[in-house]
Amino acid sequence: MSEGGTTPAASRADGGAGRRARAVWSALVEPGDEVAGALVAACGAAPALHWVDTSIRRGHPDWDALEAAGGELAAPVRRRVARAVERWSARRASVDPERDLAAARRCGARLVTPDDGDWPAGLDDLGAASPHALWVRGALPARGARAGATAAADDASRVVALVGARASTSYGERVAVDLAADLVRRGWWVASGGAYGIDAAAHRGALLAGGGTVAVLAGGVDRAYPVGNARLLEEIVVSGGAVVSEVPPGAAPTRSRFLQRNRLIAALSCATVVVEAAWRSGAASTAHHAARLLRPVGAVPGAVTSAASAGCHRLLRDGVAVCVTDADEVVELAGPTRHLAPAVEDEGPAGEVDGLDPVARRVHDGLSRRAPRDVDVIAARSGVSVAEARAALGLLELDGRARRLAAGWVVVPGHESGKG
Amino acid sequence: MSEGGTTPAASRADGGAGRRARAVWSALVEPGDEVAGALVAACGAAPALHWVDTSIRRGHPDWDALEAAGGELAAPVRRRVARAVERWSARRASVDPERDLAAARRCGARLVTPDDGDWPAGLDDLGAASPHALWVRGALPARGARAGATAAADDASRVVALVGARASTSYGERVAVDLAADLVRRGWWVASGGAYGIDAAAHRGALLAGGGTVAVLAGGVDRAYPVGNARLLEEIVVSGGAVVSEVPPGAAPTRSRFLQRNRLIAALSCATVVVEAAWRSGAASTAHHAARLLRPVGAVPGAVTSAASAGCHRLLRDGVAVCVTDADEVVELAGPTRHLAPAVEDEGPAGEVDGLDPVARRVHDGLSRRAPRDVDVIAARSGVSVAEARAALGLLELDGRARRLAAGWVVVPGHESGKG
Repeated sequence: MSEGGTTPAASRADGGAGRRARAVWSALVEPGDEVAGALVAACGAAPALHWVDTSIRRGHPDWDALEAAGGELAAPVRRRVARAVERWSARRASVDPERDLAAARRCGARLVTPDDGDWPAGLDDLGAASPHALWVRGALPARGARAGATAAADDASRVVALVGARASTSYGERVAVDLAADLVRRGWWVASGGAYGIDAAAHRGALLAGGGTVAVLAGGVDRAYPVGNARLLEEIVVSGGAVVSEVPPGAAPTRSRFLQRNRLIAALSCATVVVEAAWRSGAASTAHHAARLLRPVGAVPGAVTSAASAGCHRLLRDGVAVCVTDADEVVELAGPTRHLAPAVEDEGPAGEVDGLDPVARRVHDGLSRRAPRDVDVIAARSGVSVAEARAALGLLELDGRARRLAAGWVVVPGHESGKG
Repeated sequence: MSEGGTTPAASRADGGAGRRARAVWSALVEPGDEVAGALVAACGAAPALHWVDTSIRRGHPDWDALEAAGGELAAPVRRRVARAVERWSARRASVDPERDLAAARRCGARLVTPDDGDWPAGLDDLGAASPHALWVRGALPARGARAGATAAADDASRVVALVGARASTSYGERVAVDLAADLVRRGWWVASGGAYGIDAAAHRGALLAGGGTVAVLAGGVDRAYPVGNARLLEEIVVSGGAVVSEVPPGAAPTRSRFLQRNRLIAALSCATVVVEAAWRSGAASTAHHAARLLRPVGAVPGAVTSAASAGCHRLLRDGVAVCVTDADEVVELAGPTRHLAPAVEDEGPAGEVDGLDPVARRVHDGLSRRAPRDVDVIAARSGVSVAEARAALGLLELDGRARRLAAGWVVVPGHESGKG
């Protein structure tokens, strides 16, 4: 890294340059680009961007500078990074953070980064796929009790995602309105998308109860999609809720951004409840994102004769979701007893592990509890070959010490410090 | 035991005396009387009855004779047996098997005992609570293929209980009719009670499809309860199904017999499906009997706004039942593949996959992580042709996203969500 001496800690404290860099990252890379996420996590937002810019200027990645910051990179990792720099370079010239920040100001939005107090901590569980920043109109659920809410817990930890089909039925909309209103009355926030159908019904229910709701958009926060929901989004903002996106104002809501947007809804929320969903649906994808994050998932049953409930029933059948029929059951699902599970404590270096051969021990040490890592990243961290890492991970998985999530490998809590 | 030398094996082979004794037992003791069941299992039906009669005549239990057959009895067991003999003695004089058998002949019923070829083997899983005999009008599902049914399995192992509330809705009745008819069309039998509502709808559905159904009554098979279902029960008998009870003709359907009857429905069937049930209901009790017998339990979901589905949702929430929405899912629940434990836990549908063409994406979605699937199953699930599925699978395999095992294709973990 040309600045030299950057550490992970620097990423949270690089102030103005960091914020500006995150604004750039949010426009430069597609949501969920894990190479970008890993680079920023390793070097900090501004140094990582500086390195990318230097590499683009020189026409090739500057491996010496990168490895000075992040350690030796295995060949497959280099290839992934090189490909990423290529795809970013195509867009780099058109990224203008000042323009985006000005557009944000015009529509009453601001940039919220992991350095900010209202950054939703749950997003960090996305690891390398966590967003670089959020563009926010309105107020995010606060850490620390909101006036009117139950004082015990902070709002940021009391958010339930209510998601479902655009092609909803009057039954599903009624249930979404009732659930959202009842949740808000119990001091919870609601999160959903910005679509017609269940999304809109969930927000309407939250607004009816006078409470907080977060609409997470796939495009910029200055453009309602669909336009027919523009008024609803305005109401959310003026009523103390938030309209949020990880792409800058003006950005188009593409199909892939819709799919990636679902991971934000899941990560923002303690639990995700699917109210109505067809057999294949975006709502089911949000549910699977939540399940991968080890967050509880609920599904509202409906008539088996209703295609709009088929996705809910599939989630129930597959054991992805628990059957929920009212707000009490949703709170029970999302409640604190439910997430005591693994995610609470942060990583910290893993201790020594008994009964493991040296390679397995190093691979084990290269795992995090929270941030899923790819085999090649783990190999690189552990200083073993990818083949060795793969073999060791298989053994660790058999042993219950490691777990393979969709986003990569994590260490199993209780097995970081070599017990038994 | 005065005859001496009786063994459990003898109970299946004591011929005419055994049949007559079982007719007596079925009238003498209340359904589910486990003391009677244990005595008969230990000594055989006729010797056990002889011992009871001797004890009644003498005015006290003949422990020496009993222990000669069954080994030493601990004090608490002696007390239970003594109390049982007392309660049986009150009824013994009024039991007349010849009268009951004559009444059975008059209504076209016959006595079926464990010695008979059409004795439903599943009843034996009830252990000491298994019935002493069944009074049967019509034909029980045969061991060995019935004409018209799929030849592979015998009918006796292809029975599904469809149970539910008397206070059903038109939705529940429609689902019961459809499920029963579709099951019969697939070569399955249906079992249920004789009540209005879901019971009657299940039988009607089976009859519509021209197939076998078993009505298990709490009272004698000569008396329809409720009377309004008399005609339906006749139709069942003439259509090749059966009306069945463990109490003799003329016996009244008491409340406790209704509850005990539920265990017979569960034990007769490979799986029990609750179609509609209120929060507390007899159908839920049948489901719990099935669960105790380690038989699969299904529940049909319904609107959360319908009280008639509250019991189904409760079974789903409590993890007693699996969500089932059509006959295919019921067959999957009841079928042999379901009994092989590992197949039950499926990872659920894969999430979205970037960088795949639409056909490949659908094929990818049609794969499970755990359950290997054949190409034609995958094609059917994915809604593509078999040729398309085969081509796409080849590409997915090259790509490391799918893997061909001996038993079929699976998705490769870490590639369900296709990020990066």
